[in-house]
Amino acid sequence: MQLWATEFQIPGMSLSLKVRQSLHLKKSEFQQVAVVDTYALGRVLLLDGIIQTTDKDEFVYHEMITQVALNGHPNPENVLIIGGGDGGALREVVGHPSVKKGVMVEIDEEVVKASKEFFPQLSCSFAHEKGELIIEDGIKYVKGHKNIFDIIIVDSTDPIGPAVELFSADFYSHAAACLKEDGMLVVQSESPFFNADIIRKVYDGISQSFALTKLYLAAVPTYPGGLWSFTIGSKKHDPEMINNPQAKADSFKYYTPYVHRAAFKLPPFVQEIIL
Amino acid sequence: MQLWATEFQIPGMSLSLKVRQSLHLKKSEFQQVAVVDTYALGRVLLLDGIIQTTDKDEFVYHEMITQVALNGHPNPENVLIIGGGDGGALREVVGHPSVKKGVMVEIDEEVVKASKEFFPQLSCSFAHEKGELIIEDGIKYVKGHKNIFDIIIVDSTDPIGPAVELFSADFYSHAAACLKEDGMLVVQSESPFFNADIIRKVYDGISQSFALTKLYLAAVPTYPGGLWSFTIGSKKHDPEMINNPQAKADSFKYYTPYVHRAAFKLPPFVQEIIL
Repeated sequence: MQLWATEFQIPGMSLSLKVRQSLHLKKSEFQQVAVVDTYALGRVLLLDGIIQTTDKDEFVYHEMITQVALNGHPNPENVLIIGGGDGGALREVVGHPSVKKGVMVEIDEEVVKASKEFFPQLSCSFAHEKGELIIEDGIKYVKGHKNIFDIIIVDSTDPIGPAVELFSADFYSHAAACLKEDGMLVVQSESPFFNADIIRKVYDGISQSFALTKLYLAAVPTYPGGLWSFTIGSKKHDPEMINNPQAKADSFKYYTPYVHRAAFKLPPFVQEIIL
Repeated sequence: MQLWATEFQIPGMSLSLKVRQSLHLKKSEFQQVAVVDTYALGRVLLLDGIIQTTDKDEFVYHEMITQVALNGHPNPENVLIIGGGDGGALREVVGHPSVKKGVMVEIDEEVVKASKEFFPQLSCSFAHEKGELIIEDGIKYVKGHKNIFDIIIVDSTDPIGPAVELFSADFYSHAAACLKEDGMLVVQSESPFFNADIIRKVYDGISQSFALTKLYLAAVPTYPGGLWSFTIGSKKHDPEMINNPQAKADSFKYYTPYVHRAAFKLPPFVQEIIL
C-alpha cells in the first residue's frame, strides 16, 4: 500500500505527497489538525487538509512574513503575531536584535501542541524569554489593545472559517489602532496566480487605514502556484526600504536585504491586481 | 467519471489537473506528446508526462528565458533557440526590436505540430518573417555553426533522454564557439528546491566556457516547487544589467527591467548551490 496526502489547492488542481507515516490527526474546536511525515518534504502540518508548513520550505514563509517588516521598521521593539500557531513566525521575531517582546495570539491551542510535539525547529521559541503565547481570538485581542505594537503580523490560514474576519477592512482599522504611530501591519495575502480577488480586497482594505500599502512576493513551493503574496500597511516608513540599522544580512536561508528589495519588484500581472 | 492528469514531479510529490478533454496523444520518435484541456490552467502540453507549458502561466517561462538575455545584450540581432518546440520562446525573440533573425532548432517536429494545432498564442511566430524553424538535432546544429549568434537560448526538457547532452560542459563549449565574441548563452536549469545537483553542474559547466556565469529565478507555478532557475553564460557583458537601449518596459506580463534586476537577487539557499 502507498499512502498519499492530497490537497485540492484550487478547483481542478491538487498536490499529493507520498506519506511515510501519519503522525497526528485531531479535531480541535476550530479545525482538523494533521501532521504527516512525507518523503518529499519531511513533516507537513495541515489544517482542514490544507498545507500550512513543511520541514523543507518553512524558512521561506517564516522569514518573509517577518523579516521584511522587522527590517523595514526602524526600531521594532514590540511585535504582535496573530495566528502563526506553529511558532515559526515567533522564532523569527524573537530572534531579531531590535525586538524586546513578541506576543503571539493563536486561537487554536491544538496547533501549538502539534507543533511542540512534531516541529521542534518551529516551536523552539515558545519558551523564549522575549516571547509570550496567548491562546485567544486574535481579533478580540487586537480590538482590546490600542497604540501598543510596532508591528502586527497576521499569519493566518486562508480566508475560510475563523480566519475570514482577518481579511476585512474592519479588522485592518482595528489593527491600525493597535499599532503605534509609526507601526506596520503585515498579512499573508494568498496567490497572485489564483487569488487575485483576495489580494485586491486585502490591498484595498489595508489602504483604508494605512498611509502606505505595498505588496511583496516570495516563492513558497508548497502553496498553490508556488508564488505567494504578502501585503504590508505602514503608517509612516516605507517598508520597501531597509530602515532598521540592526538589520541582519546573514543567518537566513531566503531573506537578504537584496531579496527584501527585490520582493517588491512586481511582475505586471501582479501590479495589475492592485491597480 | 473524473479525468485527472498527474505528473510525478519529484519522488513522492505529484501535481494533478482535472481534465476537461484529452486533445492529443502521439508517440513521436523521441517522446510521448500530449495536450490536455484542464479546468485550472487551460491547455497543457506534456512531454513524456511532464508539463512543459500551459495557457495559464506560459508567459512567465517564455518571457524570462528570453527577455533577460535580449535586454542584457546590447544589440542581439541573431538569436538561436535550441528546443522550444512550442514556439513561445521564438515569439518573444522575433518580437524584440533588436532582433533581425530568430532561428529555432527543434529535434521533434511532433511538438511543433501539436503547438500549431492547440496553442495558437505560442505557435503564432513560426510564420514570422524574422523566424526560421529547423527540425534537427540542436547539438549537431551548434557544433556545425561557428561565431554566428549573439544569443543562444536552450529551451530544453529536463535532462532525460535526448536532452541529457544539452546539460553537459562539452555542449556549452560548442555553444560558446557558436556565439560571437560578445555572445550570451541562456539555459533553463531546473528547480533550486529539488534539483540543486543539476544547477551546480550547469553552472560549473557554463563557467568553463564563459567569462561571466550568473543564475536568475522566475516563478513558474506548474514546474516542481514553482520557482525555476535559468543560468546565463556571457562572454563580455554583464547580463544582470539592462545593456540594450531598445529594451521594452511595457507589453509584458512578467518581465520588466526591475523584475530583470530582481531576478538575480538570490536567496542564500540558492547562492549556496553555486558557491
